[in-house]
Amino acid sequence: MLYHVKMKVNLPADMDPERAAEIKAREKAYSQDLQKQGIWRHIWRIAGLYENISILDCRDHAHLHEVLMGLPLYPWMEMEIMPLCRHPSSVREGDQ
Amino acid sequence: MLYHVKMKVNLPADMDPERAAEIKAREKAYSQDLQKQGIWRHIWRIAGLYENISILDCRDHAHLHEVLMGLPLYPWMEMEIMPLCRHPSSVREGDQ
Amino acid sequence: MLYHVKMKVNLPADMDPERAAEIKAREKAYSQDLQKQGIWRHIWRIAGLYENISILDCRDHAHLHEVLMGLPLYPWMEMEIMPLCRHPSSVREGDQ
Amino acid sequence: MLYHVKMKVNLPADMDPERAAEIKAREKAYSQDLQKQGIWRHIWRIAGLYENISILDCRDHAHLHEVLMGLPLYPWMEMEIMPLCRHPSSVREGDQ
Amino acid sequence: MLYHVKMKVNLPADMDPERAAEIKAREKAYSQDLQKQGIWRHIWRIAGLYENISILDCRDHAHLHEVLMGLPLYPWMEMEIMPLCRHPSSVREGDQ
Amino acid sequence: MLYHVKMKVNLPADMDPERAAEIKAREKAYSQDLQKQGIWRHIWRIAGLYENISILDCRDHAHLHEVLMGLPLYPWMEMEIMPLCRHPSSVREGDQ
Amino acid sequence: MLYHVKMKVNLPADMDPERAAEIKAREKAYSQDLQKQGIWRHIWRIAGLYENISILDCRDHAHLHEVLMGLPLYPWMEMEIMPLCRHPSSVREGDQ
Amino acid sequence: MLYHVKMKVNLPADMDPERAAEIKAREKAYSQDLQKQGIWRHIWRIAGLYENISILDCRDHAHLHEVLMGLPLYPWMEMEIMPLCRHPSSVREGDQ
Amino acid sequence: MLYHVKMKVNLPADMDPERAAEIKAREKAYSQDLQKQGIWRHIWRIAGLYENISILDCRDHAHLHEVLMGLPLYPWMEMEIMPLCRHPSSVREGDQ
Amino acid sequence: MLYHVKMKVNLPADMDPERAAEIKAREKAYSQDLQKQGIWRHIWRIAGLYENISILDCRDHAHLHEVLMGLPLYPWMEMEIMPLCRHPSSVREGDQ
Repeated sequence: MLYHVKMKVNLPADMDPERAAEIKAREKAYSQDLQKQGIWRHIWRIAGLYENISILDCRDHAHLHEVLMGLPLYPWMEMEIMPLCRHPSSVREGDQ
Repeated sequence: MLYHVKMKVNLPADMDPERAAEIKAREKAYSQDLQKQGIWRHIWRIAGLYENISILDCRDHAHLHEVLMGLPLYPWMEMEIMPLCRHPSSVREGDQ
Repeated sequence: MLYHVKMKVNLPADMDPERAAEIKAREKAYSQDLQKQGIWRHIWRIAGLYENISILDCRDHAHLHEVLMGLPLYPWMEMEIMPLCRHPSSVREGDQ
Repeated sequence: MLYHVKMKVNLPADMDPERAAEIKAREKAYSQDLQKQGIWRHIWRIAGLYENISILDCRDHAHLHEVLMGLPLYPWMEMEIMPLCRHPSSVREGDQ
Repeated sequence: MLYHVKMKVNLPADMDPERAAEIKAREKAYSQDLQKQGIWRHIWRIAGLYENISILDCRDHAHLHEVLMGLPLYPWMEMEIMPLCRHPSSVREGDQ
Repeated sequence: MLYHVKMKVNLPADMDPERAAEIKAREKAYSQDLQKQGIWRHIWRIAGLYENISILDCRDHAHLHEVLMGLPLYPWMEMEIMPLCRHPSSVREGDQ
Repeated sequence: MLYHVKMKVNLPADMDPERAAEIKAREKAYSQDLQKQGIWRHIWRIAGLYENISILDCRDHAHLHEVLMGLPLYPWMEMEIMPLCRHPSSVREGDQ
Repeated sequence: MLYHVKMKVNLPADMDPERAAEIKAREKAYSQDLQKQGIWRHIWRIAGLYENISILDCRDHAHLHEVLMGLPLYPWMEMEIMPLCRHPSSVREGDQ
Repeated sequence: MLYHVKMKVNLPADMDPERAAEIKAREKAYSQDLQKQGIWRHIWRIAGLYENISILDCRDHAHLHEVLMGLPLYPWMEMEIMPLCRHPSSVREGDQ
Repeated sequence: MLYHVKMKVNLPADMDPERAAEIKAREKAYSQDLQKQGIWRHIWRIAGLYENISILDCRDHAHLHEVLMGLPLYPWMEMEIMPLCRHPSSVREGDQ
């Protein structure tokens, strides 16, 4: 099942750069692992912003919750979440 | 180049059903034609709403404008548009 | 899976009363049928408003979409939808 | 009498983890005690967020106030409160 | 139990003046009857606006709902409702 | 002349409790003194929130300003102010 | 006593031009009469908009209400009202 | 040329009182000097708030910018700016 | 002097197409005439929307008002206006 | 391709002045270098605010992202971004 998630990162401007780099490295590894599993189906940067648009494919709401709570950057993020489904005008059979 | 477009349709509740059906049929054909060309890369229904999330791949801003202005439902739509680019955490080389 | 839906009804003040009554009667029958099936788990009136808070238990996002689109009052409604899951402080095993 | 309460928790990202854990443990115990008494009738997590939707059954507004002010996390919470009543389309006699 | 209600009236500028006058006369009679019963405890005009602030004393949420739904102007009103209780700094014993 | 004032208190969650208690005690004494003089005509707690609704009866705008600026909690408060007058549907001669 | 009033005029784009002209002429006469009496102390156009900023000097809130309700354009206006008083940095003794 | 400026001051509640008093004294002197020159034509306190409404008469936009940037309180202020011009209903020839 | 103007056009979806075309043709001629005079310095379409961003160079606020009020589409437009001045980082001497 | 960017700078009021000056100097040099290359086509100060309106001419969304992320003031900025294209009423052939 698909979820559209807009993630906005609000790291404080004066955070220790090493600490920020370490958290971002863990974030990247976590995201790439989920991408390879097919759970984090898409991730795009919103041009010019420290925000992304992600499409997540989860078993259910609880799975989505678990995936997002595991994000190393979660404590500094604002989330907006919308459930998606196949559009009747789509040329595809499924929700790709 | 990718654009994230949120389209909300506001057809009046008392529109003539035949007219509405005819416009929606043209909208579907227009959308599917662009999907087959690879321009309208994704279209998802936001569950429970008469809104969709679309990812469009256009040559430039003018091309995006032309594509959206051609939508048969455009006069009844509200649009929100954001330019997207590849995310540094993406496991893919391009912007898929 | 649970969805929290806030429904706001905007019938025009000058709608023909018979037509309004007929739509509301169909809405009630539709809602009660889904309540009896266990799909529309809760419905509460927000005191003083023509709005309700509903908890729907659907198989997936597409099922939710189908249920809401079938509402006789849908063309005059504004919807706000949030996916819910079990809270870790709940005393229950499931999502009741 | 029923109240719909949306609670959003804003713990600072750099709060001491032990202190945070201790407050959350007290919050959980407090909530579960009220759930067992039938006062905190429902609590659901909004998927992906540190927010919950709660349905409280209180004797009156003063009782609601007392219950919410007693929350160990109250100083870090934003509350939105709406009075609920039985919906005329409900299949139940009472406000369940 | 007290409820703070802000009522905003949106009569269309081109409503038939006789019809408007008739609805307003019924509204006034309805309000005054409830004031005399002690249910509609206060009503103030917000200076310069077609809005009022009212303090209603109702048995419960269902009573409030019934009182508001009976307003002849209800179909043209927007309501904002907040439950009130005695303030700990009040010099009075009750909620006056 | 009447003013409707909504006061929201934003004390920082980590303020020294003794200091907070001392400020609140001065606030209460200040409010009660004005209530006894008939200037602070009503004060109600918004149930569940650290906010109040107050009705102040002042000689003029400058008097209102002086009264509010004297509040010990003023530096941590957000204010919303509306001038009120007698409503034409009121059963009373004055603005009570 | 001074009131800051922002008035926004929303005449429908398809109103009969003669009717619009007649209402505007009455509005102008009404405003100029109050200006000459010293009640409508200032009126400025917000550049580029069909909105004005006005400073009214009224005896009390009820007087303000009466003045605004008398505006021929009132049924098509949105109002925002704020009470003003002398600023402690003003070089004048009064509120000019 | 006239500009309508709404200035909101957000001094932190725990700022050193001497420093605050010193900045406010410089602000007052700066404002009064501009008032005497006829540049800061009006300044009013919004009753009950730490905000003011000012009417500035500047040679051009750059002059306005220079005047506002010179405010000792500028770093703690939020500004809203609107260009004003003579209203066609004004009884005066100029923009007073 | 420069003004940044965001213009949003809200023509009703069911306006007579000939009338709409005629108004748009007059709008275009009006705009191009002002562009040739150097008053309407820039006009850009916001991609995908029936909105534009314009930079106008006017003698003063009254001139801006006159220019905008002359727009044939003005009755269907929403305007947002901001005064601009030369930026200290600009590589140009003037405000181009 | 053109992008309309509104940049708002939120430097903390108590930032060390030398550090602020050093960052601003780097910001100015960075901006001027891009202006000379023709990438940062326009920059205007919004009069009275610490905000600017910029028109950037970039190869694509990724280029825009790279340019903005390189701003020395980026960590203290809020951005709003809109893609622009040639307006059909423009007297120019291109997007100037």
